[in-house]
Amino acid sequence: MLVECVANFSEGRRPDVVAAIVEAARGPAVQVLDASADQDHHRFVLTLAGEGEAVAASAFRAVAAAVARINLTQHRGTHPRIGAADVVPFVPLGNTPMSYCVGLAESVGERIGSELGVPVFLYGAAARRPMRRDLARVRRGEFEGLEARMREPSGAPDFGPRAPHPTAGAVAVGARPALVAFNAWLSTGDWAVADAVARAVRGSSGGLVGVKALAMDTATHGQMQVSMNLVDFRATSLPAALELVRREAARFGVTVTETEIVGMVPLAALLAAAQYYLQAHHFSAGQVLELGLLDWARLQPATGNPDTTETATRGPRG
Amino acid sequence: MLVECVANFSEGRRPDVVAAIVEAARGPAVQVLDASADQDHHRFVLTLAGEGEAVAASAFRAVAAAVARINLTQHRGTHPRIGAADVVPFVPLGNTPMSYCVGLAESVGERIGSELGVPVFLYGAAARRPMRRDLARVRRGEFEGLEARMREPSGAPDFGPRAPHPTAGAVAVGARPALVAFNAWLSTGDWAVADAVARAVRGSSGGLVGVKALAMDTATHGQMQVSMNLVDFRATSLPAALELVRREAARFGVTVTETEIVGMVPLAALLAAAQYYLQAHHFSAGQVLELGLLDWARLQPATGNPDTTETATRGPRG
Repeated sequence: MLVECVANFSEGRRPDVVAAIVEAARGPAVQVLDASADQDHHRFVLTLAGEGEAVAASAFRAVAAAVARINLTQHRGTHPRIGAADVVPFVPLGNTPMSYCVGLAESVGERIGSELGVPVFLYGAAARRPMRRDLARVRRGEFEGLEARMREPSGAPDFGPRAPHPTAGAVAVGARPALVAFNAWLSTGDWAVADAVARAVRGSSGGLVGVKALAMDTATHGQMQVSMNLVDFRATSLPAALELVRREAARFGVTVTETEIVGMVPLAALLAAAQYYLQAHHFSAGQVLELGLLDWARLQPATGNPDTTETATRGPRG
Repeated sequence: MLVECVANFSEGRRPDVVAAIVEAARGPAVQVLDASADQDHHRFVLTLAGEGEAVAASAFRAVAAAVARINLTQHRGTHPRIGAADVVPFVPLGNTPMSYCVGLAESVGERIGSELGVPVFLYGAAARRPMRRDLARVRRGEFEGLEARMREPSGAPDFGPRAPHPTAGAVAVGARPALVAFNAWLSTGDWAVADAVARAVRGSSGGLVGVKALAMDTATHGQMQVSMNLVDFRATSLPAALELVRREAARFGVTVTETEIVGMVPLAALLAAAQYYLQAHHFSAGQVLELGLLDWARLQPATGNPDTTETATRGPRG
């Protein structure tokens, strides 16, 4: 069962702390896909992937390392946060079901609560209360408001003590679909145009379901950017978002000059984009040569004798 | 070293012969990706993939099975051919170099010549004479003209006897890049339009390098088809071919209604298409989540401790 974990920590400035958390996460059967710190946000994102149980154990070790080293009472940054280890989502990869990631969130959450004494809120697909499906609501009031919120009737954590950890706050542990971070640069330096496009595209202001979008002043390019998160790329695809950006920009005589896929992206999102633009309506991922091979090589015992013969229509070859 | 072998046999009508050749090809560390027979062409394409040495041994066994069962003196079909086992190309996958596939072609060719007594012509990237780089020239005159051609000064095979095998003819063994078979349906029943588009697109009549194209009357759809082979998809991409088809069709007020990617396709061809249409000019295949994971899982010893940490700019996550 392959999963990804995109853990967010409230430390983006002390390289030794970041390195210690990454080191704690390392282990057999876990791959550190990405580790990037942001000084302004004072925040650090660690992307782990591999077999579910191994990734869960790795994420727990990283949380423990963060709880031991980060003191939120001295933390200031532009990004909302409730804890030293702030958000720990498990993301299904390949054919892994979401329910498996919910199970991982529950077991890691239980360990964080009982072994580290840090309260845990289950969020996203792992939420046990409807209002906790939305991460923004879980984080409302941030670390500074946490003690008061946890005293409210609805404030009990899913695991751990009913009060914030004095230095590490609380942790939101959850499960969610893979997210695609996708930015489009526009042929304009006018922020108001980018803002109008972002508003037309993002779901919360009447645009596309599952698209978060913000206009960003990217000074280095001299061009405005529409910065998007696609939170369910199977429902709302990269082409769906890009085509709407293009159409709304065209109302101002503006074009998309370039886009950027930020960080790791699920293969299915790219195959769907190729299929869409190529009009290959009946394409199947089973036709991807290396993919079948790699899957097969990975799952095959050393002495195996595979036999996945398929018959398909095909043009002349040779 | 992962390779593909797309072996073509001159038998498309007797299922027992096709089955015997497929059975002969099976073996450890080889995957039969595709096995499809064509009654009209009286021809059968077997797609094998896996580790190079294993695929080469598998291809040799399939050729031996074909030589023992197919009598070309009684074979009639619409597709040009010189042998019972007609064409055996090795195709590099992933990071495998072409030179490795040339080596496989040479060793399999040597075995076919010496152990089966069938003359072998090395073609494509494995050709030892420039004129044999082009498969069409190797096959000129077909089986029926083979004996006369082999008596010419330039007719000596690269391996095996200097005369055709009486029933199995000769075999073209080679190495070539992966080929993408790609068809586009047009919103017209007029064959002349499809033919004009195909002529504009195919390299041999002034179109794109590395694109073979034919107009096909696809009666089942009531729409004409432009049937293409991209013989070097890195140089001439799927979008390059499709955009030219669209533009040339538009001259007649005709659109592309659907395309078809036939059979197996290298992942790089699809990633390049997604990148092109999304305008993600700086996208890298290293960003594909499952790909890195699968590669890693495949290459990793059981006790390994991977450490491919990368730092990248990224948008907000969580």
